[in-house]
Amino acid sequence: MTLSSPFASALEEVLRPDQISVAEEDLQTFAIDQGPVTDYQEPLAVVWAETIAEVQSVVRLAAEYTVPLVTRGAGTGVSGGAHATVGSVVLNLTRMNKILEINAADEIARVEPGVINGDLNAVAAEHGLMFAPDPASYKISTIGGNIATNAGGLRCAKYGVTRDAVLALDVVLADGTLIRTGHRTFKGVAGYDLTSLFVGSEGTLGVVVGATVRLKYLPTIVRTLAVFFPSVQAAAAGVLALGTARVQPCILELLDGPSLTELDFRNGSNLSTRGTALLLIQFDGLAAEQEEALAATALEALGGTISREDPAEAQRLVDLRRNNRGLDVDAQNRVGEDVAVPRSQLVHYITALEEMARRHGVDLQVIAHAGDGNLHPTFSVPTFEPAGIAALNAALDESIDKALELGGTITGEHGIGQYKLRWLALEQSAEVLAIQRHIKALFDPQGILNPGKAIPA
Amino acid sequence: MTLSSPFASALEEVLRPDQISVAEEDLQTFAIDQGPVTDYQEPLAVVWAETIAEVQSVVRLAAEYTVPLVTRGAGTGVSGGAHATVGSVVLNLTRMNKILEINAADEIARVEPGVINGDLNAVAAEHGLMFAPDPASYKISTIGGNIATNAGGLRCAKYGVTRDAVLALDVVLADGTLIRTGHRTFKGVAGYDLTSLFVGSEGTLGVVVGATVRLKYLPTIVRTLAVFFPSVQAAAAGVLALGTARVQPCILELLDGPSLTELDFRNGSNLSTRGTALLLIQFDGLAAEQEEALAATALEALGGTISREDPAEAQRLVDLRRNNRGLDVDAQNRVGEDVAVPRSQLVHYITALEEMARRHGVDLQVIAHAGDGNLHPTFSVPTFEPAGIAALNAALDESIDKALELGGTITGEHGIGQYKLRWLALEQSAEVLAIQRHIKALFDPQGILNPGKAIPA
Ligand SMILES: Cc1cc2nc3c(=O)[nH]c(=O)nc-3n(C[C@H](O)[C@H](O)[C@H](O)COP(=O)(O)OP(=O)(O)OC[C@H]3O[C@@H](n4cnc5c(N)ncnc54)[C@H](O)[C@@H]3O)c2cc1C
Ligand SMILES: Cc1cc2nc3c(=O)[nH]c(=O)nc-3n(C[C@H](O)[C@H](O)[C@H](O)COP(=O)(O)OP(=O)(O)OC[C@H]3O[C@@H](n4cnc5c(N)ncnc54)[C@H](O)[C@@H]3O)c2cc1C
Repeated sequence: MTLSSPFASALEEVLRPDQISVAEEDLQTFAIDQGPVTDYQEPLAVVWAETIAEVQSVVRLAAEYTVPLVTRGAGTGVSGGAHATVGSVVLNLTRMNKILEINAADEIARVEPGVINGDLNAVAAEHGLMFAPDPASYKISTIGGNIATNAGGLRCAKYGVTRDAVLALDVVLADGTLIRTGHRTFKGVAGYDLTSLFVGSEGTLGVVVGATVRLKYLPTIVRTLAVFFPSVQAAAAGVLALGTARVQPCILELLDGPSLTELDFRNGSNLSTRGTALLLIQFDGLAAEQEEALAATALEALGGTISREDPAEAQRLVDLRRNNRGLDVDAQNRVGEDVAVPRSQLVHYITALEEMARRHGVDLQVIAHAGDGNLHPTFSVPTFEPAGIAALNAALDESIDKALELGGTITGEHGIGQYKLRWLALEQSAEVLAIQRHIKALFDPQGILNPGKAIPA
Repeated sequence: MTLSSPFASALEEVLRPDQISVAEEDLQTFAIDQGPVTDYQEPLAVVWAETIAEVQSVVRLAAEYTVPLVTRGAGTGVSGGAHATVGSVVLNLTRMNKILEINAADEIARVEPGVINGDLNAVAAEHGLMFAPDPASYKISTIGGNIATNAGGLRCAKYGVTRDAVLALDVVLADGTLIRTGHRTFKGVAGYDLTSLFVGSEGTLGVVVGATVRLKYLPTIVRTLAVFFPSVQAAAAGVLALGTARVQPCILELLDGPSLTELDFRNGSNLSTRGTALLLIQFDGLAAEQEEALAATALEALGGTISREDPAEAQRLVDLRRNNRGLDVDAQNRVGEDVAVPRSQLVHYITALEEMARRHGVDLQVIAHAGDGNLHPTFSVPTFEPAGIAALNAALDESIDKALELGGTITGEHGIGQYKLRWLALEQSAEVLAIQRHIKALFDPQGILNPGKAIPA
């Protein structure tokens, strides 16, 4: 887009100058999210909509001029879902950041899409409530992005993923029409479940411009256990033991040895001297203390060393874990995976990962939302040499095959985006992929909404 | 269908004689479910598929001969979703009733669609697990039917509805293709959420021939409270008070005076002498006792009279409630509604219902899954006279309008089926209805899967 293109002139009629940028700095900033980049493209422009009407106008113009739109929240996605594509305009929603309503009696909130997850939680907390989905990025990611990716998080072992928290959506369709799906009530079964269809659709079916979400009680009692194990396999076995003990942690994170070493290196902690693997466990609610005791008994029997953390230290550990993606953005030589396996397969899968990493000569760190069987193995090589990158990719491919072989999925919570498209056909049949393409065509016949993402073209 | 029609001959080639019936008795039995009947139609035939391959064959023939198929589980639906329609064949899945797998470590089960909810729960209980969705019909309804209606139940206040318990589905599409949606893992975000699209689609998008469901821990500690109130409004206020007390009942049922009187009449109990309205509350899990105490304090402060039930009496009360639909099948002069409102509106809504009933001169009983704001008001008149039926329908229409006015939905859990079609356009916009029709056309271009149900033609 040059400023003199007809599309640009049309945009300038519906937005103020400070809502449109073609400055090189902006084009670079908003060209990519935090996922691996395989096909770097700068957008033609970045636009900041501030109202639903403005989103409608932008979408209508994109439809009229057949310009691809990449909707963007905070850009913290790690699958390249918000990467710009050829000839696209980035539709940035971060200025639509108003919390429209908190209704404590009904335990719901209505928000604009650009509201930061942590900001909603801060306001909800004043009412003793919380928005349960808590991706580790909760301090920076938007509710719109959480919805578009069906984000998980640490406490979804107990409280469910984003889809479980979304009651109704306001969505601008590919022709600019505004619709409302779902209901303000906790339950409702009128018509097909369009809300769930938009949740996790990564900006390819419509632009989420508003959401009614369900809030849960903010627990007042929280107990945290750090349990160190002599091996990552023993820690993974601990996850099953907690199941057998019938306790339901709100957080159940597994960190392997290399992850502990890296955390120590970054934070000056001494975790790696205390064991080879760590289960970080949090219980909340009125039974937290009883559950903690049951868990401790079960895990000690497996050889775990229990360290009951005082609240401050516990919070620090959870924060360390949350920030563990840290500064390293994914790159060609460092890819954080996001597979999930049935929980009984955690031990086998981690063993297989370690063997793969050794064989391919790549580095491996494993952290997992273990309560859900959702693993984030990170493979890396200390080089950009083709041979190293090839080894990394071979390990990645094999890790995906193995997860599928064990009954797993190629993405537990991060989404397919752009980066994981190459593996989708390994998980889903040609018939299922065809249905998805038909759904995409139904909602977006011109293919202007985030093309080349979420499902294969 | 006469036995000599080409379609019939083709059916006879893929099914044994005992899998096809045109006997008048069967046609009558399987012509309707338990919903109100407005357009009685007998099916041409009833067929019992026993395998996925047989379902595929039947669907392929239906497609070839353009014969409408009404898929049927136990026929306990109350919205007419399984009512036969003109020229239809009923595809009965009750013989596909095998539990294929219970995996206690992974906390999942795989079942055929005709498995009775209560049977799955009985087997799961041997592993200390449960299939949480428990429609009051759990002893007789099928998992396939529960999925197709996204059934709720008593304990979904705490444990969620059927959709929350379904991980993966095997579905036969309208052309006979078999697909698998979803994943065996707790989490997964690959592709659009087709699983949720089929859940609640009432047999109009595909035939569910298998399901992988998530199981939850079967609580060992259960406490039940019956709290009697001087008015139904006070009881409804109690629901909000429990929220403020931050306790999470697994069961929270509200019964008004006329409901108590009817229960007493049927069961020889004395509930109606103990108060004008009842909240029946169950807590489960390790904190059940603490939650019970908090609840009692909160409700006594509102004028509730607490009766802590011994386990046997408590179970009897819950069973009474579960069986409360009882023997009276819905009829032209008795219609059980299924609206939901935001919880803060329960008091206002019930007051409005009572006023409506008085004004129209119809009888009213209200029971509610109050924790979810999901009400089942039953309107009835002791006559089939046109004037009485007209008054009943006027009250029904008004009750729907009022629920919507208060931010509610026209169906919390029973589905639109055939009976509630007339109200759907009051809740959903023309654009949303159009999308639903397009989705229907995408999955079932010939319109052979349960036509005239769930969404307006
Ligand atoms: C440090 C870190 C930790 C993380 N931890 C987790 C975690 O624990 N769990 C987890 O699930 N993810 C995690 N993520 C990934 C990421 O934060 C989530 O996917 C998050 O939901 C993205 O939100 P966002 O606002 O940044 O969206 P973006 O990255 O801007 O967009 C993500 C996708 O959603 C689309 N989109 C965004 N907003 C809208 C909208 N309003 N309408 C339609 N489409 C839209 C975009 O087109 C894109 O496809 C983490 C990321 C980082 C950097
Ligand atoms: C006494 C009583 C109490 C009830 N309590 C509740 C309650 O608490 N909560 C609640 O939600 N409901 C309740 N119901 C309603 C009913 O039991 C539920 O809707 C139940 O899920 C229906 O299951 P079914 O096997 O009887 O299905 P059916 O009535 O046979 O069918 C229901 C719908 O699903 C479709 N269908 C059935 N099986 C399949 C399949 N395998 N594939 C595709 N489509 C299929 C049918 O075409 C129809 O549209 C109650 C009903 C009664 C009679």
